[in-house]
Amino acid sequence: MKSDIDFITASDIENAYKRISVYTNTTPLLSSSTINHLTDAMISFKCENFQKAGAFKFRGATNAILKLKEKTDIRSVCTHSSGNHAQALALASKMHGYQSHIVMPQNAPRVKVNAVKSYEGNITFCEPTLQAREDTLNKIKEQTKAVVIHPYNNYDVIEGQATCFYESLQQSVQTPDYLVCPVGGGGLLSGSLLTAKYFSNQTKVIAAEPEMANDAWQSFRSKNLILSENPVTIADGLKTSLGSYTWPIIRDNVYDILTASEESIIKAMYFVWERMKIVIEPSAAVSLAVVLNYPEIFRGTNVWIIFSGGNVDLQKLPWQ
Amino acid sequence: MKSDIDFITASDIENAYKRISVYTNTTPLLSSSTINHLTDAMISFKCENFQKAGAFKFRGATNAILKLKEKTDIRSVCTHSSGNHAQALALASKMHGYQSHIVMPQNAPRVKVNAVKSYEGNITFCEPTLQAREDTLNKIKEQTKAVVIHPYNNYDVIEGQATCFYESLQQSVQTPDYLVCPVGGGGLLSGSLLTAKYFSNQTKVIAAEPEMANDAWQSFRSKNLILSENPVTIADGLKTSLGSYTWPIIRDNVYDILTASEESIIKAMYFVWERMKIVIEPSAAVSLAVVLNYPEIFRGTNVWIIFSGGNVDLQKLPWQ
Repeated sequence: MKSDIDFITASDIENAYKRISVYTNTTPLLSSSTINHLTDAMISFKCENFQKAGAFKFRGATNAILKLKEKTDIRSVCTHSSGNHAQALALASKMHGYQSHIVMPQNAPRVKVNAVKSYEGNITFCEPTLQAREDTLNKIKEQTKAVVIHPYNNYDVIEGQATCFYESLQQSVQTPDYLVCPVGGGGLLSGSLLTAKYFSNQTKVIAAEPEMANDAWQSFRSKNLILSENPVTIADGLKTSLGSYTWPIIRDNVYDILTASEESIIKAMYFVWERMKIVIEPSAAVSLAVVLNYPEIFRGTNVWIIFSGGNVDLQKLPWQ
Repeated sequence: MKSDIDFITASDIENAYKRISVYTNTTPLLSSSTINHLTDAMISFKCENFQKAGAFKFRGATNAILKLKEKTDIRSVCTHSSGNHAQALALASKMHGYQSHIVMPQNAPRVKVNAVKSYEGNITFCEPTLQAREDTLNKIKEQTKAVVIHPYNNYDVIEGQATCFYESLQQSVQTPDYLVCPVGGGGLLSGSLLTAKYFSNQTKVIAAEPEMANDAWQSFRSKNLILSENPVTIADGLKTSLGSYTWPIIRDNVYDILTASEESIIKAMYFVWERMKIVIEPSAAVSLAVVLNYPEIFRGTNVWIIFSGGNVDLQKLPWQ
C-alpha cells in the first residue's frame, strides 16, 4: 500500500516549483545581527510576508489552479476561508483567468474582505460557524460547479507550500540544522516536512503552535489526531485543526512541536517590527517566539524560520 | 575661489563608500508591482529603514568617525539630537571604540532614548529648545573635549550620506530619471545631489518636504535661505532648517522641491506598511507622498525613492 507521504514525490515538488515560480515572488532569506546575538544562533528568516497576497498561501493556491488547468476545462474555484487562503485563491484565480467564489464569515476582518474584493473574488457571507461555512460552500459549489480548493487538506496545495522550504534551499549554500515552521491546518508544515525528507534529510523540522490552540501539540504527544475546539489566540491563522492528509505526514516526520504563550507571540512580533523593520502577522511570530522560549535547543545551531505572512489590520495591533 | 560643491569630489564619495561599506548594511532596492500599477511608473525604493540603527544617518556618522580616526587621537564625539543621528552616532562610536555624548531634549521619545542607551551613548538631557541644546552641548564639549559631529552641517557627514545614492547606482544596471529624497537639514539631499552630479548627471533630483515644515521649499523658491520656526509635522526628522554647508549645494543643484500634506504623508506611510510589509517612518513616507501627489511628473518614468528610515514608536502610530 502506498503510504501517505508517497502521494507527493521529490520530483512532484521540483515540478511544482517550476510551475509556480514564474508567478510567485522569490522571497528573501533575511537575518538580523541583533537576533543572532540574542539567541547565540545563526538564524535566517524566510520572508513569506513579502509573498504575493502577503502570505505563503499563494504558493499552494497557484499550484492548485495550475494543476487544475491541466485536468479540466472548468474555470471556477471555491473555498471557505476568513484568512490568507481566501486572498491567495482570489489573486491566483484572477491571474489565471479563473472565477473565485469565497465563503467568508460575516465577522471576517474588513481588511481581509477588502483584499478579496480587490482581487475580484465573489464573496458570500455566512454565519461564523464551521457548519454554516461548509453548508454555504456546498450550496455555492452546486450553483456554480466550481471546484473546491481546500486551504490545506489537498495534495496540490501541500505540494505548493512545499516549495517555500525548497526555494530557501536553492537560495543558500547551507542547509539548516533546524527549520521552524508554524502549524495551523498543517499545509505549510507537511509540505516543509516532505521537502526536508527529500532535499535536506539532516534538517530537524520543528513546528511552532500557540499554547492557546495546541491541538497539533496534543495530537503529536498522544499520536492521535485531536481537533481544535474554538481556540482563542492572537495567531488567527493557526486556529484550524490538522486535516486527514496533513496529520499522517506530520505524525511520522516532525521532530517536535513546541508552543508559545500569547504574551511571547506578541513580544516576538513587536521585536521583529521594531528591530527588523518588517511587518509580520501574529501567526508568523509564533516560530520566533518558540526559538526565544527554548534557547537551549537552538544555541550554536543554524536555524531557518518561516515568517508565514504579513497580513495584519494596522488599525488593531495586539500591543495597543 | 573654490565653490561649495567642490569641497566634496567624485573620488571623495568613492573613498567614503570604500571606507564605510565594511560597516554599513547594503540596503536593498525594492519595488512593488502595486505601486508601479498605481503610479504608471517604474519605482524602486532604497530601503535605508534596513540600515544599521534604522536610518541612513549611520552612513554619515560612520564616515565622520572613521575620518576623525585618521586625523586625531581624540576618541570621543558629541552632538545634540532627539532623533536618528543620535542613535547613529552612538552605534558608530560603539563600533569603533569611541565614547559618545548625546544631548537630548527632556521630551525626546522614550524609544529613541532607549536606543541611544542600548548603544552605550552618554545622554545629557536639557530643556527642549535649540538654545538649551546648544548651550548644553558647548558645556559637554568643554568638559569632555569631545569632537562635535553635527547631524548634517559637516562635509564628512554629507559625504557619508552621498553613499546612499552611490550604492544604489552600484546595485542597478539602470540610472533613474528621478531621484526623490526627503529634505530636513539637507544632509541626505546635498549628498545625493553630489552623487547625481558626478555619477548620474541625467538624473533629476527632487526633494520632498512636509507642507507644514516647508522652509527648504520657501528657500528654493526665493533663492534665500529661510529658517524653519518650530514647525509641527508628523515627519519629525524633517523639522530642521538647512545649514550653511547644505543650502548652497541644494540651491544650485536640486531640480525641484515638492511638498506633501500631513494627510498624504500618513496615507503613503500606511500604504507602504500594508502593501509592502515594511516599517518606514513618517519622514521616509514624504517622498512617496510627493510622487503620489504629482502623478503627471512621474508617469512613464524610472523613479528611485529613498526610504530614509524606519524608527517609529510602535505604541504611537499616526493613524490611531
